[in-house]
Amino acid sequence: MSHTSLSVAVIGAGMAGTTHANAWRQVGTVYDLGLPKIRLAAIADAYEPFAKDAAERYGYEKAVTDWRDIADDPSIDIVSIVVGNALHREIAEALIRAGKHVLCEKPLADTLESARAMAEAERAAGTVTAVGFTYRRNAAIAEIAKLVREGHLGEINHFEGRYWCDYGVDPNTPMAWRYSGPMGSGALGDVGSHLIDTAELICGPLVSVSGGAMMTSIKQRPVAKGHVTRGTALDTYAVELAEVTNDDVATFTGHFASGAVGTFSCSRVAWNMPNAMMLDVLGTKGRASWDLARCGEIKLDDVNSPAGLGGARQVLVNPTFPYFARGSSMAFGGVGLTQIEQFTYQAYAFLQQVAGVTEGALPPCATFADGYREMLIADAVATSAANGGAAVDLTPFNR
Amino acid sequence: MSHTSLSVAVIGAGMAGTTHANAWRQVGTVYDLGLPKIRLAAIADAYEPFAKDAAERYGYEKAVTDWRDIADDPSIDIVSIVVGNALHREIAEALIRAGKHVLCEKPLADTLESARAMAEAERAAGTVTAVGFTYRRNAAIAEIAKLVREGHLGEINHFEGRYWCDYGVDPNTPMAWRYSGPMGSGALGDVGSHLIDTAELICGPLVSVSGGAMMTSIKQRPVAKGHVTRGTALDTYAVELAEVTNDDVATFTGHFASGAVGTFSCSRVAWNMPNAMMLDVLGTKGRASWDLARCGEIKLDDVNSPAGLGGARQVLVNPTFPYFARGSSMAFGGVGLTQIEQFTYQAYAFLQQVAGVTEGALPPCATFADGYREMLIADAVATSAANGGAAVDLTPFNR
Amino acid sequence: MSHTSLSVAVIGAGMAGTTHANAWRQVGTVYDLGLPKIRLAAIADAYEPFAKDAAERYGYEKAVTDWRDIADDPSIDIVSIVVGNALHREIAEALIRAGKHVLCEKPLADTLESARAMAEAERAAGTVTAVGFTYRRNAAIAEIAKLVREGHLGEINHFEGRYWCDYGVDPNTPMAWRYSGPMGSGALGDVGSHLIDTAELICGPLVSVSGGAMMTSIKQRPVAKGHVTRGTALDTYAVELAEVTNDDVATFTGHFASGAVGTFSCSRVAWNMPNAMMLDVLGTKGRASWDLARCGEIKLDDVNSPAGLGGARQVLVNPTFPYFARGSSMAFGGVGLTQIEQFTYQAYAFLQQVAGVTEGALPPCATFADGYREMLIADAVATSAANGGAAVDLTPFNR
Amino acid sequence: MSHTSLSVAVIGAGMAGTTHANAWRQVGTVYDLGLPKIRLAAIADAYEPFAKDAAERYGYEKAVTDWRDIADDPSIDIVSIVVGNALHREIAEALIRAGKHVLCEKPLADTLESARAMAEAERAAGTVTAVGFTYRRNAAIAEIAKLVREGHLGEINHFEGRYWCDYGVDPNTPMAWRYSGPMGSGALGDVGSHLIDTAELICGPLVSVSGGAMMTSIKQRPVAKGHVTRGTALDTYAVELAEVTNDDVATFTGHFASGAVGTFSCSRVAWNMPNAMMLDVLGTKGRASWDLARCGEIKLDDVNSPAGLGGARQVLVNPTFPYFARGSSMAFGGVGLTQIEQFTYQAYAFLQQVAGVTEGALPPCATFADGYREMLIADAVATSAANGGAAVDLTPFNR
Repeated sequence: MSHTSLSVAVIGAGMAGTTHANAWRQVGTVYDLGLPKIRLAAIADAYEPFAKDAAERYGYEKAVTDWRDIADDPSIDIVSIVVGNALHREIAEALIRAGKHVLCEKPLADTLESARAMAEAERAAGTVTAVGFTYRRNAAIAEIAKLVREGHLGEINHFEGRYWCDYGVDPNTPMAWRYSGPMGSGALGDVGSHLIDTAELICGPLVSVSGGAMMTSIKQRPVAKGHVTRGTALDTYAVELAEVTNDDVATFTGHFASGAVGTFSCSRVAWNMPNAMMLDVLGTKGRASWDLARCGEIKLDDVNSPAGLGGARQVLVNPTFPYFARGSSMAFGGVGLTQIEQFTYQAYAFLQQVAGVTEGALPPCATFADGYREMLIADAVATSAANGGAAVDLTPFNR
Repeated sequence: MSHTSLSVAVIGAGMAGTTHANAWRQVGTVYDLGLPKIRLAAIADAYEPFAKDAAERYGYEKAVTDWRDIADDPSIDIVSIVVGNALHREIAEALIRAGKHVLCEKPLADTLESARAMAEAERAAGTVTAVGFTYRRNAAIAEIAKLVREGHLGEINHFEGRYWCDYGVDPNTPMAWRYSGPMGSGALGDVGSHLIDTAELICGPLVSVSGGAMMTSIKQRPVAKGHVTRGTALDTYAVELAEVTNDDVATFTGHFASGAVGTFSCSRVAWNMPNAMMLDVLGTKGRASWDLARCGEIKLDDVNSPAGLGGARQVLVNPTFPYFARGSSMAFGGVGLTQIEQFTYQAYAFLQQVAGVTEGALPPCATFADGYREMLIADAVATSAANGGAAVDLTPFNR
Repeated sequence: MSHTSLSVAVIGAGMAGTTHANAWRQVGTVYDLGLPKIRLAAIADAYEPFAKDAAERYGYEKAVTDWRDIADDPSIDIVSIVVGNALHREIAEALIRAGKHVLCEKPLADTLESARAMAEAERAAGTVTAVGFTYRRNAAIAEIAKLVREGHLGEINHFEGRYWCDYGVDPNTPMAWRYSGPMGSGALGDVGSHLIDTAELICGPLVSVSGGAMMTSIKQRPVAKGHVTRGTALDTYAVELAEVTNDDVATFTGHFASGAVGTFSCSRVAWNMPNAMMLDVLGTKGRASWDLARCGEIKLDDVNSPAGLGGARQVLVNPTFPYFARGSSMAFGGVGLTQIEQFTYQAYAFLQQVAGVTEGALPPCATFADGYREMLIADAVATSAANGGAAVDLTPFNR
Repeated sequence: MSHTSLSVAVIGAGMAGTTHANAWRQVGTVYDLGLPKIRLAAIADAYEPFAKDAAERYGYEKAVTDWRDIADDPSIDIVSIVVGNALHREIAEALIRAGKHVLCEKPLADTLESARAMAEAERAAGTVTAVGFTYRRNAAIAEIAKLVREGHLGEINHFEGRYWCDYGVDPNTPMAWRYSGPMGSGALGDVGSHLIDTAELICGPLVSVSGGAMMTSIKQRPVAKGHVTRGTALDTYAVELAEVTNDDVATFTGHFASGAVGTFSCSRVAWNMPNAMMLDVLGTKGRASWDLARCGEIKLDDVNSPAGLGGARQVLVNPTFPYFARGSSMAFGGVGLTQIEQFTYQAYAFLQQVAGVTEGALPPCATFADGYREMLIADAVATSAANGGAAVDLTPFNR
């Protein structure tokens, strides 16, 4: 593997896959890399039209339909895995064996067993392995984490996280793999996983969860004919209905090692809220709030105001923030940020790790171990829910 | 007791007491009563300057320092009890024995035992008894409850309630009775009680709670010298510190009989949030949100929009709403509403009950039984918290 | 006239009249008066049911149908005039002659000639005379004015004021006196008058206006049968239509003596915005914004933030603010304020003037001279509009 | 010129130049082009390090320091001009003579004379020429324009546009070409130009302006040494100060041919508002508002709500909207949009014009004639300001 350039491939060319493809392509436009040149080598998708279309749009050299062609290509250094969770383990293990650096989408796997195996494979690997908790790369969230770390908000007493989506609110949205796993693999596994990782990033480790509650609001969905992707309008549905077996809504309580308490809720059936993530972090000297709908700002309240004139400030993401896109075009406050850019910043941190940059480097990506831990916590929530909300101790998982 | 007029007294002349005093005085200005005339008879407060000042400001005929003078006055029909929780039972029982109609502030009592006794006294009483859950009289909340009842939002799958205050965030705020009860009598008992009552008003009965978590952020407070009221600046503090024994922050999960799940959190140490109550109600056909900071509006999202142009509407409280102040001055949208007005609307509903108005009457006030039930639920949350978040069944409390 | 108590009467018992009636009644509940006792003496309205209803609701001793009965009553000290603009002059002059203190609603009169005469009558009067620019008593606006005065925002370079209402947006809202005056007496005269007074309160005197533009959106309205008040639903309309002759929308540019420029707009046909007043004040060291929909808060941005963490703060009205209701029930931030309370604070300032309180007194009310000046400015805007937007010099009006 | 592929070059590699460079590169990732392939040919900048850096980051084949090399290169089809206004004319004329398609940044030129000449050159050109009014490509603004065109908001009676920036608020920001033109070339020429074009896009042509007012808040600025770009921190300033000769703040009134009135204001000294553009469009059947800080949403109010439950809706940009990025990754509501994306959508519309696509094509770009018109209107505002706000007739400019 040559390090005068780094060759990148993406496995999976759906919505999130193309977002990875875009990130590898765009990373050099927003950062002064000081890094080997990026070569966009290949995109794989079992559905060939997707693979070809993505490769052409994003300027990758070739499109393949079998991910093994990527694992077998000795010229490829870095691979994003962006396919169904059930395929993560097999692909990741093969890629690691082939000596690739691997960035795997979250959640890490479809089962705890697979996730554990991946974390083990990581320990044995000689390459960089990471899981795609992209909110770690949101400039506002990273700033909140930094403020908490530096004591700017005092001792945190309460964290509240909500991640509410609506992709499942229409009962005519057809059955898909995401509606058929066990409790905990629905809303919690999909969007709650981001909340859990973000909560620990900001407030440190959780030591127990309780009050797990999950409900399935839409209990049956039509079985679709043919190839379906999220967001695609369907022409035809089968008459057949299938049972939804996992959670549309989940909520739980968390206890942090610091003594803070956490309130968590997530939903995939929140009416007309396409993608609403909201965080509140409250401490003895201030508070910070963030809303994905206003991705480029923090509401920050602290002691830095004249007497009688304090209040939550609308702080716009700016060049003093971590992950502010220093080299990008129009890099000033008020232009806006989007969720998509988080993937680009993630790509940059990953590349720094691969290239061994340490001086002034961004914090490294979440590891497979982090991804496994997040799944253990989600599983603990599901266990709590299955036991009427009983507490589940997380300390065995803490390193 | 004559019903050509109704004589009213208020016991307690602190902040909330004067709010009651004001409500009885103002009710006739905002409603077409169709009711007996209101006579403002007396205000009682153990601290005489408070009693006298309130009586003079709000136009009550006399000020007394002993509440028994009110119980003993045969000309008085209606009495508000607005004193420390520990005094509610004794006063309420005496007033009921004296044949008074009683409106008691929340929470109903300081102990479950007292609350139960008051609910029993209520069953035996020949008069109207009620507990002051004033948010039932908030026009926006009442409208949300009506929308849910009428199915406008479909089946509710998720309720989220937050009530965050900051009255305890300053560690120099001195020790007071509200910081010294058992776990569950702090933030949960004070502001969480409103969330619980409001949640059941909107979503129907809870059947279990779990994930109870409580934390004390400020563990010691200075003991104040002399007479102190909430919001009063202190000149002098004792050197002595006392232990805070109840909850600054509380969070829990609730299960509604309907199948919906509830996420609840409350705080009295939320930095610089003097009085923030926020509700989200999510269903299969819409959602409604409300924020006390914008007391006169609902964010409402439903199916009533042209294709592609839907979204949460900023619905201003208007004359079609329950509790809209029909007879008031400047009674049009956009002028604003405040929490204070809820007390006036509560007074009106209570007066209708006393006068036996049924046709077109507002929903009746919460009863002592409701207040007892709310305390049982709060106690169940405290039990859950004491057991690491274990579930507590509420069905024994359901009627 | 005895000053051991002050007797008050209100002429006009419509929506705004009852708001005055309420203010005189409530002023003692929110302030420590240190003043003579208020006696609620009389309410007058030509339409007897209104007068009687208001007197009963607000506790005034008598209701009369002829305002002259009030002018002639030697026991009355203070009178609010809250009737159609065309009646202001005659009533005010009579009251002044009778030695009354007079608080007249805005705009001061229906014609410049009448307003000038009233300002002259004021100079000759031995009593207190004032015009009801209630936004001077809004705690947030008063604070912004104070911040500007103290240089907190640096030199102001731009003021933007918008007052958008919707009371005229429905073409079926019937013809009324407010739709039939000359250009300048519509939206500009009604709500624009508040903007003009508030702008000068905050930024100092205007020296010219230009860019006056007025448009009539709804050109004809049905003539109603019978007694109609704003907000009243009509059962029947005449077939007849009448021409609307004044402005539904008005906008103009102002130049302040300070060098700042002002952008002003007002509307009575702003779709579904019942009562939206919004101000932005921008200077070289900060900015402040206010929105009537969030009556109790200021958005304030200045230099008091840590580097990189600045932004507009949501400052809640609090006890350090002018006109904060110190003696009121529930007087802490976050409870909310409404437009109605401005009338109460206005009543307090007026009473202080009548009683001759100077130490620690609130700023005095706007005078008839101020009211005349505001009308001269509005007239200058109308002149500008009639001349295609040509500039009109205001310096002849400056004292 | 071959149309089996289209070769693109960008002249100017500053902040806006790289945004163009990015747009040409990314256009194929968000749209199904149905177009010739894009070849990224060259980037020119007089400052060679900028040119080289941009070419490398954005994948352009070569970097040049003289724009004439691009004009002279017969393989180049399309050229973006993104340099100082004073250079636009010479470059555009040369490019047109060389048979290039030209997309020129706004404002079209530094003088009316040059702009007029460019509009003439356009009429003679056989290629596509356009000016970069990118807000025409904002999905929310385009939707508002469509709603107005279709009568969804009734007859528009009022348009209010504000564009407030802060890039000039710091008096230490050094002198630059943008601070040294005549009145009208400052805030008005820079950001006001967007307001004017957007206003006419939504409401149709203006027929007159009046009330022009301009003020210079920061009257002198330090002269910087060496190469300076907007946003760059300076190490050293000269002792010398230079006079600022144009407008920091501008405001004016506009009359639309439709009868609607317009209120306009713009600023480059709006404290801590990096880039705030806000629009309100009010009509007889609804209103729409937009704020660049929430680039991906419209506040829309209309008749489509149940009785009593109407209000402004928060409509998220979605696939039914013009310019919704249909082919992009993560193309669902709630992910966010930024100003940067408008450049990509502009590139797409321009490419459709070049390729002669008509069926289902997006509205074409603004022409040089449109850019000249916008400058005539801005000049009319400056003329109005120079004459104390006198009206200036625009009908001679209307086609």
